[in-house]
Amino acid sequence: MSPDQEKTSEPPSPLHPLRPLTSEEVLRARTVVVEKVSGKDVLLYFRSIYLDEPKRDDLVQFLLAEHGGQAPVNTPPRQATVLFDRVEDGVTQLMEAIVDVEAGEIRRHKTFPAYCQTSYTATEFGHFQDICVASEMFKKAMEEFSLPEEFAITIDPWPYGGLDPDEDVPRYMQGLVYARNVTSDNPDSNHYAYPLPIIPVMDMKTKELIRIDRLATGGVGDSLYPSAPTGEPRKLFGHGKSAEYIPELLDRPIRTDLKPIDITQPEGASFKVHSDNLVEWQKWRFRLGFNPREGAVLHDVCYDGRPVLFRLSFSEMTVPYGDPRPPFHRKQAFDFGDGGIGRAANNLKLGCDCLGAIHYVSAVVTTPGGEPDVAENVVCMHEQDNGIGWKHTNFRTNRAVVTRLREFVVQFVGTLANYEYVFAYKLDTAGGITVEVRATGIVSVVPIDDGKVSGYGNVVFPGVLAQNHQHIFAVRIDPSIDSYDGNDTAVVLEENHPIPMNPETNPFGNGYEIRRRVVESAMYEDAEPRLNRAVKMENVHKKNAISGKNVGYKFTPNATQLMLADDNSTQAARAPYAKHHLWVTGYRDEELWAAGEFTNQSKKEEGGVRDMVARGDWFVDTPSVTSEKGQRSSPVVWNVFGLTHNPRVEDWPVMPVEIHQFHIRPADFFTSNPALDMPTRQNESSVIVPCCGKDASRDGKKSGVVQADPLAHQQGPAVDIDPKELGKGPEASDNKRHSGTLSKLFAWKKDSK
Amino acid sequence: MSPDQEKTSEPPSPLHPLRPLTSEEVLRARTVVVEKVSGKDVLLYFRSIYLDEPKRDDLVQFLLAEHGGQAPVNTPPRQATVLFDRVEDGVTQLMEAIVDVEAGEIRRHKTFPAYCQTSYTATEFGHFQDICVASEMFKKAMEEFSLPEEFAITIDPWPYGGLDPDEDVPRYMQGLVYARNVTSDNPDSNHYAYPLPIIPVMDMKTKELIRIDRLATGGVGDSLYPSAPTGEPRKLFGHGKSAEYIPELLDRPIRTDLKPIDITQPEGASFKVHSDNLVEWQKWRFRLGFNPREGAVLHDVCYDGRPVLFRLSFSEMTVPYGDPRPPFHRKQAFDFGDGGIGRAANNLKLGCDCLGAIHYVSAVVTTPGGEPDVAENVVCMHEQDNGIGWKHTNFRTNRAVVTRLREFVVQFVGTLANYEYVFAYKLDTAGGITVEVRATGIVSVVPIDDGKVSGYGNVVFPGVLAQNHQHIFAVRIDPSIDSYDGNDTAVVLEENHPIPMNPETNPFGNGYEIRRRVVESAMYEDAEPRLNRAVKMENVHKKNAISGKNVGYKFTPNATQLMLADDNSTQAARAPYAKHHLWVTGYRDEELWAAGEFTNQSKKEEGGVRDMVARGDWFVDTPSVTSEKGQRSSPVVWNVFGLTHNPRVEDWPVMPVEIHQFHIRPADFFTSNPALDMPTRQNESSVIVPCCGKDASRDGKKSGVVQADPLAHQQGPAVDIDPKELGKGPEASDNKRHSGTLSKLFAWKKDSK
Repeated sequence: MSPDQEKTSEPPSPLHPLRPLTSEEVLRARTVVVEKVSGKDVLLYFRSIYLDEPKRDDLVQFLLAEHGGQAPVNTPPRQATVLFDRVEDGVTQLMEAIVDVEAGEIRRHKTFPAYCQTSYTATEFGHFQDICVASEMFKKAMEEFSLPEEFAITIDPWPYGGLDPDEDVPRYMQGLVYARNVTSDNPDSNHYAYPLPIIPVMDMKTKELIRIDRLATGGVGDSLYPSAPTGEPRKLFGHGKSAEYIPELLDRPIRTDLKPIDITQPEGASFKVHSDNLVEWQKWRFRLGFNPREGAVLHDVCYDGRPVLFRLSFSEMTVPYGDPRPPFHRKQAFDFGDGGIGRAANNLKLGCDCLGAIHYVSAVVTTPGGEPDVAENVVCMHEQDNGIGWKHTNFRTNRAVVTRLREFVVQFVGTLANYEYVFAYKLDTAGGITVEVRATGIVSVVPIDDGKVSGYGNVVFPGVLAQNHQHIFAVRIDPSIDSYDGNDTAVVLEENHPIPMNPETNPFGNGYEIRRRVVESAMYEDAEPRLNRAVKMENVHKKNAISGKNVGYKFTPNATQLMLADDNSTQAARAPYAKHHLWVTGYRDEELWAAGEFTNQSKKEEGGVRDMVARGDWFVDTPSVTSEKGQRSSPVVWNVFGLTHNPRVEDWPVMPVEIHQFHIRPADFFTSNPALDMPTRQNESSVIVPCCGKDASRDGKKSGVVQADPLAHQQGPAVDIDPKELGKGPEASDNKRHSGTLSKLFAWKKDSK
Repeated sequence: MSPDQEKTSEPPSPLHPLRPLTSEEVLRARTVVVEKVSGKDVLLYFRSIYLDEPKRDDLVQFLLAEHGGQAPVNTPPRQATVLFDRVEDGVTQLMEAIVDVEAGEIRRHKTFPAYCQTSYTATEFGHFQDICVASEMFKKAMEEFSLPEEFAITIDPWPYGGLDPDEDVPRYMQGLVYARNVTSDNPDSNHYAYPLPIIPVMDMKTKELIRIDRLATGGVGDSLYPSAPTGEPRKLFGHGKSAEYIPELLDRPIRTDLKPIDITQPEGASFKVHSDNLVEWQKWRFRLGFNPREGAVLHDVCYDGRPVLFRLSFSEMTVPYGDPRPPFHRKQAFDFGDGGIGRAANNLKLGCDCLGAIHYVSAVVTTPGGEPDVAENVVCMHEQDNGIGWKHTNFRTNRAVVTRLREFVVQFVGTLANYEYVFAYKLDTAGGITVEVRATGIVSVVPIDDGKVSGYGNVVFPGVLAQNHQHIFAVRIDPSIDSYDGNDTAVVLEENHPIPMNPETNPFGNGYEIRRRVVESAMYEDAEPRLNRAVKMENVHKKNAISGKNVGYKFTPNATQLMLADDNSTQAARAPYAKHHLWVTGYRDEELWAAGEFTNQSKKEEGGVRDMVARGDWFVDTPSVTSEKGQRSSPVVWNVFGLTHNPRVEDWPVMPVEIHQFHIRPADFFTSNPALDMPTRQNESSVIVPCCGKDASRDGKKSGVVQADPLAHQQGPAVDIDPKELGKGPEASDNKRHSGTLSKLFAWKKDSK
């Protein structure tokens, strides 16, 4: 609510509880914190200000009224989460205040222990390079190398991951150091082609360089540790080659034979974006959220008025690198917890990141001063065609009925230094939800001695080793299957088991059985493709009118490779979530993070899915086992999947997308195919591309396959049955249809010499 | 070559050896067979006439000359495979003749043993219903039921699968019997909603009904076997409900709010189809084949002049049903071997099956008389956009470079009675090949007593049980990685293994290792996602200039559920291929079938991948083990994947597509991202969809997220750095870039009361 609105006498229409904060609200929250928390000689550094989402119980009452078309009930107050550093007498405390922005009050606040490191801000990234290169320690280290004249230093700051269990450090960052060829005078010349074998480590509180780690640059059979400097400066990057990706510096011409594909909606888009981020499309309806950590979030996803998911989000992603040479074990980023995908979201561009009729959504982010700043076009939403949706051809009449699969895409892209992720939620006309990630960007590289190869990665450019690594994602699925009452929801694992051949139940051996296992209490599990293990989210109190089964949605966790790091490693301890494909936890407000709230410099998970499971919440009224700490809860489902990425040369200098999807599909939620009423109309804009247009060497007249012979062709046995003869009523029953044509169908040839 | 061409004095340009037969060639092959094989009182029934593909060694010489721009060398003769029944004195023999269509000679021929049952033809399907319903046996069986007045009988003939080991029968078919409501006078009214509990079995040689199997119709806990008839006719389908899918009979209005998406290429398509089915698109080049069994096949797939795959095809698919009640164990179709996907290919329609600028390909098929018939538009080819292809945003300058992923799709659709498969090969601009199947159509159903539920399937409509089943596909990949010499190709399994934490090689526990296993001789293997097992097809004699590794392509077999039928069952014995994800066999001409040539009524695989492996071919010069029967061979790779389909109510009456894909991607085949030269131009046709157009309740002015605040936003630390200041050469090195802005970046707020 804006100050202007406050001054009017008419009560303004309040903002929806799930709508992200407006700029005015951010400013107001900041003002409240400044007023209440500051003091003499107190500095405040604002890290983020974003919507404090309402407690589920409160929100449900509001949503029930909203969907029932009633006046707002129990409207949760608009509250902001304000995360900030409070600095006094040289002591920095990380604090969080929950501010009621209308009342202008801090409702609660907490101060985090010193070891809790929140995510880095762009500002901190900005500090690193300047302080580093100005330092004597760095200058001295650089004397070990000799770079070509026209090369400058550029540094990608990274989280300082993978602490030893007994290592106790303040807020650190490490820098991956590159040279950049500046002869082109182009600021986008690719520096990743020139990695240097040093990693400076900085204390971000004192802004002092702590040390500079040297990197081993050997190949197969060489030591894990760097060789001692010879005293002579090592000559680097003398090969004179570059690895550019921006068009004006490319080493090859841009291809000109790729004709445009235009995707247009001449009658307009089929979706509507209403105020307060309410989106409606083809019986789907949801609220779009956005926050600095997760980026886009789908709230209150409903189909045809029935709730499906309470909240759907990408929760975390960790990237452990598999190069065992120290200090590469510190290359383990948590791109949500250490960086923040919302904070790193790209400003999307029409006709580049999305084609067609696009709606863009901008987000309010926070400056270090706590002021609102608008990140423009960080989410794009549009419809797309995804091929045939369903089809059946009646082989008797050759009549085909075919519909298209239409999808509504909510997409956002995050850049984490060298790397990009394209995230998408895709709702479709068959009632399905596809969750997709595309990995692209520039692979993380380190130096390798000329002419060597390594088992720890692939040489993608002279002197450049792209290290083997994994990306392990966690998607949080908070179901509301046909009900806002969490106690209605059950999670069931469904598996297909062979039945050994036996005379009683499987006399011929073809039978198999579906086994169901109700998840009674919080647990983890792995994908098991040998059993086709699926996760069903069901409403235990609503039955499908046709099948009699619980209405539900399901997905099959993909059996991707899980984290390879040793169970006893810090990498594994920080991300227990990455060791299993499925976690089911008891719902608690504010529990959104698979690896816990503070991943940055963590030594182990705190408050992530492992801790949530250990608490022992349960989901049925009378579970076999309960825990003292736990409680009767609504189940939240976390799906974990990974990409093991051993880089190919083709991934250089920017990698083609590697796509991962999983599909959440209705399972007896509907009483028939929800896409049955899709139009079967022919698209008018499609055209025929002829053969051989530019190749007159053969005119195609004789090419019976390329160009159709002028003979009629019909498929199936009804080739010579007049369709009008079919279906004439009881008298002309189907069982007589073919009798008249039998002789013709018996087209046996009798030939004699 | 047409008769016309033969008469000219100039030698005509010969047809390419991989071009499917023309109508003229089919006719000529038929004529030769009629002349040579017929005799007095001999009947010929033609089953199929299609290109006899050249032997690989011959073809390679031709292709080398073709690609080298030389005059045709060693042009293989145009030959036809003619498969036909020869009937004399009541004895039917299945025969195959290889006809040189130019020479007019039969080059070789063979007569198959009586137990070899080739696939059914449309004509045979046509016979079944008429003979069945006319028979006394069927009429008598029908007396057990009472149907509503307006219902007629319609029968889907099926292969007679799953013979007992000691069962010895001639050519049989079984019929799934349905009633059809004919009141609508619409021949496309859906009969699958009304299954009857009988399966008639027919001898297709004598055209006599052998018996009628009764079906159990019980639910959980009921017998596997049908109850004895009560004497009273069972009243069926009294519920008065229908399950239509054609628009004019639908039980709901077609949705009208789905606005068209037009996909156009105003400058034309980027691909060219030349004569003889040569296709070129974006550095890709291949010959399109088509035959009655496999449908579309890609031959001689090259990228930028370098061979990649010699041949790519869908080889087989079996559908075992998991309902153990006899005779459902006989529901096991082999849709390639028993039916033929090419034969069953749909006539595709512009703007329905494919959108955009489409090239259609028709195919020559064969009538029972051996005459050519043209199946029009059975393959469609077009380009499509598949989202972001690669992207990188320089967080320092906020400059994003983004390209699209463009795909070239070769699609065909097969209808096997109730069911549809949409097959696609997708070549892409990043050098990748995606192999895709979509399953759609009508699930196979049987009757179930009112009010009961079953563990063997799902009740999708009153009285209708959709049985649990699996679809298990085999894709044949014949690689030619940068060489037509099969001896250059190696198959290597690559796995990622954890390294236990240890001071010597993995001091921090983050390291993992890639293990390679060269496939020395024919073998099978399973997907192993826990190790991220990938299959690399490499050229052992060509190294990547950057990485030093063998150039190659790779794919990761998806760990889908394999065949669940008991190893001792006939179902399993017929399709050993369906028990493993990966088979590597030694190349032999004409070996194209994963489950062997004759799947119809087979009791066990003969000549499929199991037999090929058992032969013991080897792929390296000095294998550890060799077999007497085997030989040094070029490896052929078969990827097997399955869909376990326990039907949902949503799969009724026509199921939304279930999509399966796997990706064959370059792995150090190129020296950088092959899509690096993709245009980054903005698509001009894309438009912005505004917010709240139809919802004036809030004008969006205050909605900072939905509508952008007019504040500039840039991402990353360079928010306040003039990009022009960057990259000014050695003097203005990067390490000084931020110094001028440090104070601004240090935006700590000092507030005091």
